[in-house]
Amino acid sequence: MKFQQVALDTLSKARAGEITTGHGTIQTPIFMPVGTAGTVKAVHQRELANDVKAQIILGNTYHLYLRPGLDILEKAGGLHQFMNWDKPILTDSGGYQVYSLSEVRKIKEEGVTFRSHIDGSKHLFTPENVMDTQRIIGADIIMAFDECTPYPCEYGYARKSIEMTHRWLKRCCERFDSTEPKYGYPQALFPIVQGSVYKDLREKSAEAIAFFEREGNAIGGLSVGEPAEEMYAMTEVVCNILPQNKPRYLMGVGTPVNILENIALGIDMFDCVMPTRNGRNGMLFTRNGIINIKNEKWKNDFSAIDEDSALFSDINYSKAYLRHLIHSGEMLGAQIATLHNLNFYLWLVKEAREQIIAGTFYNWKNNMVKKLAQRL
Amino acid sequence: MKFQQVALDTLSKARAGEITTGHGTIQTPIFMPVGTAGTVKAVHQRELANDVKAQIILGNTYHLYLRPGLDILEKAGGLHQFMNWDKPILTDSGGYQVYSLSEVRKIKEEGVTFRSHIDGSKHLFTPENVMDTQRIIGADIIMAFDECTPYPCEYGYARKSIEMTHRWLKRCCERFDSTEPKYGYPQALFPIVQGSVYKDLREKSAEAIAFFEREGNAIGGLSVGEPAEEMYAMTEVVCNILPQNKPRYLMGVGTPVNILENIALGIDMFDCVMPTRNGRNGMLFTRNGIINIKNEKWKNDFSAIDEDSALFSDINYSKAYLRHLIHSGEMLGAQIATLHNLNFYLWLVKEAREQIIAGTFYNWKNNMVKKLAQRL
Repeated sequence: MKFQQVALDTLSKARAGEITTGHGTIQTPIFMPVGTAGTVKAVHQRELANDVKAQIILGNTYHLYLRPGLDILEKAGGLHQFMNWDKPILTDSGGYQVYSLSEVRKIKEEGVTFRSHIDGSKHLFTPENVMDTQRIIGADIIMAFDECTPYPCEYGYARKSIEMTHRWLKRCCERFDSTEPKYGYPQALFPIVQGSVYKDLREKSAEAIAFFEREGNAIGGLSVGEPAEEMYAMTEVVCNILPQNKPRYLMGVGTPVNILENIALGIDMFDCVMPTRNGRNGMLFTRNGIINIKNEKWKNDFSAIDEDSALFSDINYSKAYLRHLIHSGEMLGAQIATLHNLNFYLWLVKEAREQIIAGTFYNWKNNMVKKLAQRL
Repeated sequence: MKFQQVALDTLSKARAGEITTGHGTIQTPIFMPVGTAGTVKAVHQRELANDVKAQIILGNTYHLYLRPGLDILEKAGGLHQFMNWDKPILTDSGGYQVYSLSEVRKIKEEGVTFRSHIDGSKHLFTPENVMDTQRIIGADIIMAFDECTPYPCEYGYARKSIEMTHRWLKRCCERFDSTEPKYGYPQALFPIVQGSVYKDLREKSAEAIAFFEREGNAIGGLSVGEPAEEMYAMTEVVCNILPQNKPRYLMGVGTPVNILENIALGIDMFDCVMPTRNGRNGMLFTRNGIINIKNEKWKNDFSAIDEDSALFSDINYSKAYLRHLIHSGEMLGAQIATLHNLNFYLWLVKEAREQIIAGTFYNWKNNMVKKLAQRL
């Protein structure tokens, strides 16, 4: 994996770059649509590649491990083959879902035991077997196994947690470095900075993580309920420590405003379920603000879903039609809204990149954030 | 509306034809995907037109009347505009859903009072207002308001019912003929033959319906639970009476075998929820038989969904992947299976048409029906 910086903003820490993987290049900053269980919900792979123009998608190790399972994924030749997606894929470590989805879980030094949210069966995730699992899934970028602390989190717990996360990282690296990719293309391992909302812990964790000198670095444990200002403060602290010449991935973030503010702080990669999940519930993100398409005011609005967009479904369908579909629980409503939001998120990061290259990012960003959070 | 016969089979009553509407031509025999509430569930209009190559779709008056409602449909400029579909549309009269979906309904000479299955509100459908409603929806072909008798149905009830259906038809025609289309293109009204599974009632009804000399004729009240042989017997009786030079539409039918057998009896048009509804549950129709994709046997089958198909989703995705999606309740599973089934149904009627024109329909049909109902 190669990371090349293309441009640096002078009024902020924003940077434009390019990541090269075994499945092609990624123009950063980038947003990665979440493809939970081998599918970005309600979207065909053809639409993802040709219409939304996603450059990389994310798969969830927890979901993929439980269903379809490693046996099938390995027989398929990895997730790319299984789902027919030939661009880059990143997988998380499964930790986040273990902490948030499975009811019974027990964190020990060895790893985490948990029960499947599907059938209650018992499983153990360790730093070692999570590396093996991600080798089998075959993502281009894989994540270290960490503990993602909840918000709020007591200082003492957060401190002990990062220490374990760093010990786990050592085990991840040892396993990763002593094994080979299974499908002929390289994989990169990203470690994850934790430390809740405590500046000194975030610094300590960032230093520890940077020390491992992996091909990229991630920040986890944010966007879990803390105020946005705390998130930005932590991103800033961490980005000052993480190496400049490697991509930085802020996990699970966020709203369009969050994304722009974090780009300004030096983040290159994002993922979030918000455009897909909120889309299915009728929330549309646009460059002028947020639309709740269920509202009465869109009932007789026969204008295109997004007149600023070039996406087929934004042009072909009206707001009134989409409102009817979402209101009636029709699948096509979820399909249209998801496409819209993903296309908007991909537009947003592409535009940010162009503004960085043009040297106009900072003012553009400040103007955009005023509009993006408005309710239309 | 014009109907032109292109070819007649010599060994059966099958015919190939062409219907010309204000939204283009339809090559018959044809299958019409069901677009219940202004959407063929899980399918984009772009896919319907370009991939599945649907030539005409069906809308349900009952659903559209309740949601989005006539006010919105009229302001949109009719259903074509509302959903952005510029090929022909046929609407049913709403009667079938009133009988099957609404819990409280009362059939009187004036019409039918019923309660909405959505909010329990009370409504009245009469032959006159159903014509007005379909004028507002703006379908190219609209259906007369009839009583669709259940199966089994006592002879006395069925006899009285067709008499009322015929009186209602007179009222439909009077209202239809004294009103104008709203959106600048013509509409055609098809009456419906009823009579349950009683040969003499079907004959009587077909004669009464033919007497009205409308632009096409339909057969209703079949595929409601009766044995296939009874269905075919009724179709045969009715097709012997309905005029040769007008299209014949068999409502709500059916399986691939039902469709081929009824084409052989002289039917030109079909609609059915089976390809879409059963698709969402993982049942795939293929030229070699029926696949239940949920079955264990497809778990490790990484071959394309349908190797005989040219449809993007049949080629791009494997059986194992589709099984995983349906199993996991992922929307993309419903999307893929629906596309497959609609594409197969459209292939089946297109192939039937070509076989009729080539003079090889009868043997081809007999070979196909042996394979189509097999369980794979």
